[in-house]
Amino acid sequence: MWHQRRIRLSPQPRGFHLVTREVERAVPELGELRVGLLHLLIQHTSASLTLNENASPDVRHDFAAWFDRAVPDGADYFSHTLEGDDDMPAHIKSSLTGASLVLPVRDGRFALGTWQGIYLCEHRDSGGARRVIVTAFGDS
Amino acid sequence: MWHQRRIRLSPQPRGFHLVTREVERAVPELGELRVGLLHLLIQHTSASLTLNENASPDVRHDFAAWFDRAVPDGADYFSHTLEGDDDMPAHIKSSLTGASLVLPVRDGRFALGTWQGIYLCEHRDSGGARRVIVTAFGDS
Amino acid sequence: MWHQRRIRLSPQPRGFHLVTREVERAVPELGELRVGLLHLLIQHTSASLTLNENASPDVRHDFAAWFDRAVPDGADYFSHTLEGDDDMPAHIKSSLTGASLVLPVRDGRFALGTWQGIYLCEHRDSGGARRVIVTAFGDS
Repeated sequence: MWHQRRIRLSPQPRGFHLVTREVERAVPELGELRVGLLHLLIQHTSASLTLNENASPDVRHDFAAWFDRAVPDGADYFSHTLEGDDDMPAHIKSSLTGASLVLPVRDGRFALGTWQGIYLCEHRDSGGARRVIVTAFGDS
Repeated sequence: MWHQRRIRLSPQPRGFHLVTREVERAVPELGELRVGLLHLLIQHTSASLTLNENASPDVRHDFAAWFDRAVPDGADYFSHTLEGDDDMPAHIKSSLTGASLVLPVRDGRFALGTWQGIYLCEHRDSGGARRVIVTAFGDS
Repeated sequence: MWHQRRIRLSPQPRGFHLVTREVERAVPELGELRVGLLHLLIQHTSASLTLNENASPDVRHDFAAWFDRAVPDGADYFSHTLEGDDDMPAHIKSSLTGASLVLPVRDGRFALGTWQGIYLCEHRDSGGARRVIVTAFGDS
């Protein structure tokens, strides 16, 4: 069983955002999989996807605090600066977290840990809506 | 052919640990795959999985040295501090290395490079046993 | 439909290199997939793969600038030094970016974003040709 579709994640401000429910609602095919996997690819190079803690907003805040220090806006060793001070850091942060996720599915639901959720990592100040290609496959 | 099961990795002290053999022993279905993939997802947000050098313990030691400097325990810009100084760094280190791996399988064995092994990255001082969902799929 | 093969990526100097076309040419089976995925695993621990911006060489230059500062050659806290000052940083950079990629395929072509390309991240000064195991699977 193979399903593939393109979905859109709502625009978010720069930062880390929990989107597990938004992804589930956009992919009803998930319910048909008895055992399988769901692959997500964000079709951008300045936003990314990761799995992390789904409970405390503090965790998402601290993600931003760390990444903004580790990859500073407007660092003087960057040469790719025409698209703004937040552009080149966004590319690097994207590769540090990753453009894709593969998640196990069991009996029509994600088989994640209790505290795991999907983060949309928005690295631009004004990134807009983000396109994601979702591929669901497995046994129905 | 689809097999999915939950396994447990033994408790490890904080650091980077080679678990290739432990994973192989826990997933006998690997032997049935002629060509396929094995997907691993660690169901936690303060431990992670990566592939790296399988020979020298020095490499694993230096991984810890670098990550502990890059994401310092108890940094003053963290607000999520109730669960201990090692908790918020553990979340960030987890997303830098990643919660899942996809490995090629050929003739019943991992098709890794000669020097590649699976690391359990334990980012908490006392993380305990770690659960991993393993999904094996392909042609038998 | 399952295809698996080992390909070689041409030797590159240390840095970040766009290899989307080189991968496409080496995997003609891509054209047979109506809907599916392509998995890539680089069989090394001092080079890695990531998706990022496919247009500006400045971006690839700035990736090197950032990674070389974040994981400095010959840092005094590294103990694994016998293979050269660039060896231990190469291992860490590899796990920060990752040894594998999973890419969606649609109608025989990668379903990437307009600005996304595959980077070979070469972290050694003289890494040589790099082996990649490619697994294509899906519906034909």
